Parts: sequence; C-alpha cells; structure tokens
Amino acid sequence: MRAAIFRDGEITVDTLPEPEPGAGQVLVRTLACGICGSDLHARRHAHRMVELARHFPGRKPMDLPRDVVFGHEFCCEVLDYGPDTARKLKPGTKVCSIPALLTAGGPQNIGYSNDNVGGYAERMLLSEALLLEVPNGLAAEHAALTEPLAVGVHAVAKANIRGDEVPLVIGCGPVGLAVIAALRLKGLRPVIAADYSPARRALALALGADVVVDPAAQQPYATWAEHAAMSAEQKAARPPLQAMLPALKPALIFECVGIPGLLQQVFEGAARDARIVVVGVCMETDRFEPMLGIMKELNVQYVLGYTPDEFASSLRLIAEGQVDAAALVTATVGIDGVAGAFADLANPERHTKIIVEPWR
Amino acid sequence: MRAAIFRDGEITVDTLPEPEPGAGQVLVRTLACGICGSDLHARRHAHRMVELARHFPGRKPMDLPRDVVFGHEFCCEVLDYGPDTARKLKPGTKVCSIPALLTAGGPQNIGYSNDNVGGYAERMLLSEALLLEVPNGLAAEHAALTEPLAVGVHAVAKANIRGDEVPLVIGCGPVGLAVIAALRLKGLRPVIAADYSPARRALALALGADVVVDPAAQQPYATWAEHAAMSAEQKAARPPLQAMLPALKPALIFECVGIPGLLQQVFEGAARDARIVVVGVCMETDRFEPMLGIMKELNVQYVLGYTPDEFASSLRLIAEGQVDAAALVTATVGIDGVAGAFADLANPERHTKIIVEPWR
Repeated sequence: MRAAIFRDGEITVDTLPEPEPGAGQVLVRTLACGICGSDLHARRHAHRMVELARHFPGRKPMDLPRDVVFGHEFCCEVLDYGPDTARKLKPGTKVCSIPALLTAGGPQNIGYSNDNVGGYAERMLLSEALLLEVPNGLAAEHAALTEPLAVGVHAVAKANIRGDEVPLVIGCGPVGLAVIAALRLKGLRPVIAADYSPARRALALALGADVVVDPAAQQPYATWAEHAAMSAEQKAARPPLQAMLPALKPALIFECVGIPGLLQQVFEGAARDARIVVVGVCMETDRFEPMLGIMKELNVQYVLGYTPDEFASSLRLIAEGQVDAAALVTATVGIDGVAGAFADLANPERHTKIIVEPWR
Repeated sequence: MRAAIFRDGEITVDTLPEPEPGAGQVLVRTLACGICGSDLHARRHAHRMVELARHFPGRKPMDLPRDVVFGHEFCCEVLDYGPDTARKLKPGTKVCSIPALLTAGGPQNIGYSNDNVGGYAERMLLSEALLLEVPNGLAAEHAALTEPLAVGVHAVAKANIRGDEVPLVIGCGPVGLAVIAALRLKGLRPVIAADYSPARRALALALGADVVVDPAAQQPYATWAEHAAMSAEQKAARPPLQAMLPALKPALIFECVGIPGLLQQVFEGAARDARIVVVGVCMETDRFEPMLGIMKELNVQYVLGYTPDEFASSLRLIAEGQVDAAALVTATVGIDGVAGAFADLANPERHTKIIVEPWR
C-alpha cells in the first residue's frame, strides 16, 4: 500500500507492506486524517521526542532510522477483522478511534510508532475494543476532527471551571480553536482570544469567541482586563485587605501556542491568582522567571490528550452540529500532497486544518 | 536607635533616627525577629527584587542607594501610640503583626522598604489595626516564628487537599519544616521529606514527617513511590485503561528549596498527575523542559505569603503548643550579630532559625 512516510527527517511517498490484523484488531481503510501541529513538531524535533520518551517506560519510542507513518486524527472504514474479534460493525462502517493500539504488552501509539502506521497510509490497524461508529451521515473529514476537538474538551475539563472565570485563549491554531469551541459549550463568557493572524481571529469568532485581539495592535491582557472588571456588588463583597487589589474576575488563560518564551509572556501578562492551562506543546527547553509566578500565586496546569470518554463525546458534539468542525478544514490532499501540506501549514493565513485523503 | 542596616550590599550596624508613629500607627520595641531565607536572598539579589517589583505597582520598591532595615518575622512590645488610635493594648503588651504598614497610599512593606524599618532595629512602627496580642506566656522568640509557620499553613491551604494524596516535601529549611508542621496538622500521612542535611532531617521528624530521605543516598521519588502504593481495593477500582499506569496514590509535592534547576528535578521525578506547590523562592531565571509537565499533566501552584487569617491562626497554633516552634530556633544574636548570622546560616548543620534580639 502507499503511504507518506517520515524517513530521514523528511516526508517521502513510498509503498509499505499491507498491515495484517492480529488478535482483537481490525484492518481499516483510511478515509480522512488531519495533519496535526504535533506532526510538524515531530518532524523537526523527532530526536527530542525519543529522548523524552525515556521518562515514560510504558510506550515504545520511535526508532528513527526506521520508517514511521504519522497521522493520529483519522476516520476510517472497516475492511476486515483479525482473530478473536466480535465483528459487530460490518465492513464499510465508518469508525473513529483514539490513536492507540491495544497489544499484549499494553497500549501502543498509532502514528508515532515504527510498528503501527498512522493515517497517512491507505490502510491501518485499529483495536476493535476502541472503535466508535461514526453517526450516520457525518462526513469522514469532519469525523477526523474528533481528535483535535477532544484536546480542547480535555483542556477545558482540566481547568475545573467554577463559572466566575473570564477565559483568555492565547493562540488560535487548531488547538486554540478547539479550546474556544469547548469553552463556548461550557457557557463561560465572554471568551477573549488572541492571534496575530486575521484569518485565525475570524475562525475564533466563528467557533465562539466573543472578543478577538491582535497582539500586534493591542495587549491581550489589557483587553482581557477590560472584560473582566468586577461588578459593583462583587467589588463591595471583597474583604478589606483585598480592596487594595485590582477588582478583576478570576483569570483563566489557555496557552495554545507552545513555543519557548510563551509561558514567560503569560507570566508577565497574567493577573494575580490566574490559572494557566498549558495546551500548546513546547518540545524545547524553556526559560522563565519563577518570581513572577510566585508573586502572583499563579497556577499552571499542563495538559495532554484526552480520556476515551472525552474523545467519544467530541465525536457526538461534531455529529450533532454543536461544533462547526467544517469551518476548520481549509484543504484536502492525497498522499502525494502531504509533504507540501507540511510546508503550507507554516502560513496561518492560508491554512488551519489540512485533511489527508489517502484514497485520492 | 541602633539597627543592622542593609547598606551597599552589606549588613552594617549604625544608628538611625527614632521612628515616629503616624495616624493609626504604634511605636513598638522589637523583642525578637527571625532571620528569613528571603533576607539572605534579598541581600544577594536586591537588584532583581527591585526589578521584579515593577510588575506590582501597589507596593513601593526599595531604593537601593538608601538604607533598608530587613526583618519581617517579629514579635514586639507596645511602647506608644500615634494619633487616631484606639489604644486598646497597654504599653508593655507583646504583639505580632503581618509585616505591612497601612498608609494613606495603601499597605506598604515592613522590612523591604526604605521607609518602614524591619525587626533588625531596636524600635519600629506597626499599624494598630493589624496588631495581634501574643497569648499569655508565649516567649517572644517563639511568637516571632508565627510568620514562617504561616507560610507553611498557606502553602498547604493552597494545595486544596482532598485527603487521598501522599505528600513529599523537598527541602527541610524553615519553609519546608513549616510545610511539614502544617501537613501534620491536616492529618495527611505519611509525610515524606527530603534534605541532604542530617540535622534538617532530624528536625523534619521532630515536626511531623513520617519518613525522611537523604537524596545523596536514595531517590526521594522512589521512596515516595514505596509509600504511595495503592491498596488492592484502590487498584481494583480503577477504570480499564488506567490499569496500565503505575498504581500510585496522588502525589502532592512541596518544592521548598527555591534554586534554579529544582523545578526541572521535580518535573523529572514527579509521578503522572502530580500537583506541585512551589513554596521555595527562586529569584533567578529558571530553565525547564515543559514536555515533562505536558506528558505527565503536572499542576504547579506557586504560592507566596499568607492571609491575615492564616497568620493569626499560626500564632494560636504555636501558643497552644500544636507546633513545636522552639525546635526551630538554633541561636539568638544581638544587632551586632546579624552580619555573622547571615554568614552562619549558609551551613544547614549548624542553624535553622536565628533570632535577632535587638535589645541585647
């Protein structure tokens, strides 16, 4: 079968042996697979990723001299079953799954693995136990957005929202947009969102942001403060010594950029007692001033991924039209277009989410 | 009056004009004042402290070419009152106060200020509204430990303990010891504590640690894991996908060292989903690997200081004998001994808390 392969640091099209389903596994045809920012990161920082994997003995790290097929945001069609399977879903059924394969040695990655190809290949293997049937009529390229939406749903869940916070989303790439959609579903308003790109700010508004800020023109934290002013009653209810502090509602900041220096910027801009959820994936060493965190008593929650329940509910949210997933898709390409798509994604004005359709 | 003054980066004994109480203020005689790690930090990093103060427009930063008298862990005796005071406490009454002076322009620091001398001076000014009478019979040098204990009480309060966590305290200086005492009062056990110094480990046990670790001999996180193993029932109750993860109770780590590189060490050692409370005050730029935090979904709560209520309850805890404050005091010096005490505190085997008695 054909696949876009990560080989010697580049994306190369070549053929690979057909995958053969083992016990409990399902052979599927890849219908659609989103290109994730993590894949762009992984291509540039593959050695870092392998180095960091030593902290997590459960999952087998990539062996970089060997081929890897990325792609962990997929929607597929059931083709055939391996041994020891219940075969409840007929061939032809459209399915999603978290990007994990259950093996005798425990769950292993799909997409960042030498053994389990991801969605930039024509066919792949999934675990029967993890299959979710795509509700009737939902297009595969929109069902493939389940994974990135689940990242936002999870980040918002980990924020332990009380209801009185004013959220600020820094960065409106796919992760930031998923966070905005998940915040809107929670009803926490107004949602303030910041991005340098006009196209991304327009998408932020489409997905539920109430106020968007261009950091080149305006300080996002100043805009946040304008929208976070306490009411007269809230002001009056404060204990005497707190009356000296700025009268602001609690800050809940989502860092959705993931580059070195960003956390320090958030520490500088954040209001006292802010809670910061780090959703952006920074793979490099970072530097910051802990004293800012200390003097403001900041809280930083790092998040990654999602639970199986959050993944399943994200698929339902898209299928029910509660999140406008279609708005995120800016292009579709075949296997031959993956390398070009990696390059194109550098320009936030042109692209948000590019979907790979390996059958094209 | 005489005072140990921070002048040109050194501690120098000299005379200063007598303080004169303004409206709402009280002239007090300093009975005892602890030397805090922050004072040692401040002497070495005074310029950093001033630089960081620009983020906090409320409080006036130190003007370093001018004299400063440190000392914010004090117990005093009422001498005289300024105008507009109720004078409920008679002269001779022993009092404590949070190290803040209420002025027309808002609260200002005591101890890190050119205007308000701290406890390394014979006399100082306090605000009548903030005075707490020391319960009968409690020695001034023990009442002076209210402030550092309040730091531990606050750190533990900010940890939002649920009751199922196993705490690990990294560093058993005065801050770590206060955290241990506060954890013991919460009943959260076993308390694991790590320090390179045998004297500090002995104190940790005296203040309520159940297990102490010498990081030179043993990995504190490995010792923590031995004591954090889930029970058979807890293991059995886990959802299926979590059954692949190590069966450990939730980790609650208190970082009580405050030097660059320490947070990265904690990120490396911490178990998945650990909550980290940063109580140590690192005034320098720090470097770390955000990916470790992301992959483990760590939570970092930075804390500083305490509330007035936490301060008042800390004084009560010492007075009622619920915390063995006396164990912390390893020496008392007069004003002439302050400079030497700053040097002596570098050796954790010799000293934990040195109390300045300016009347000596």
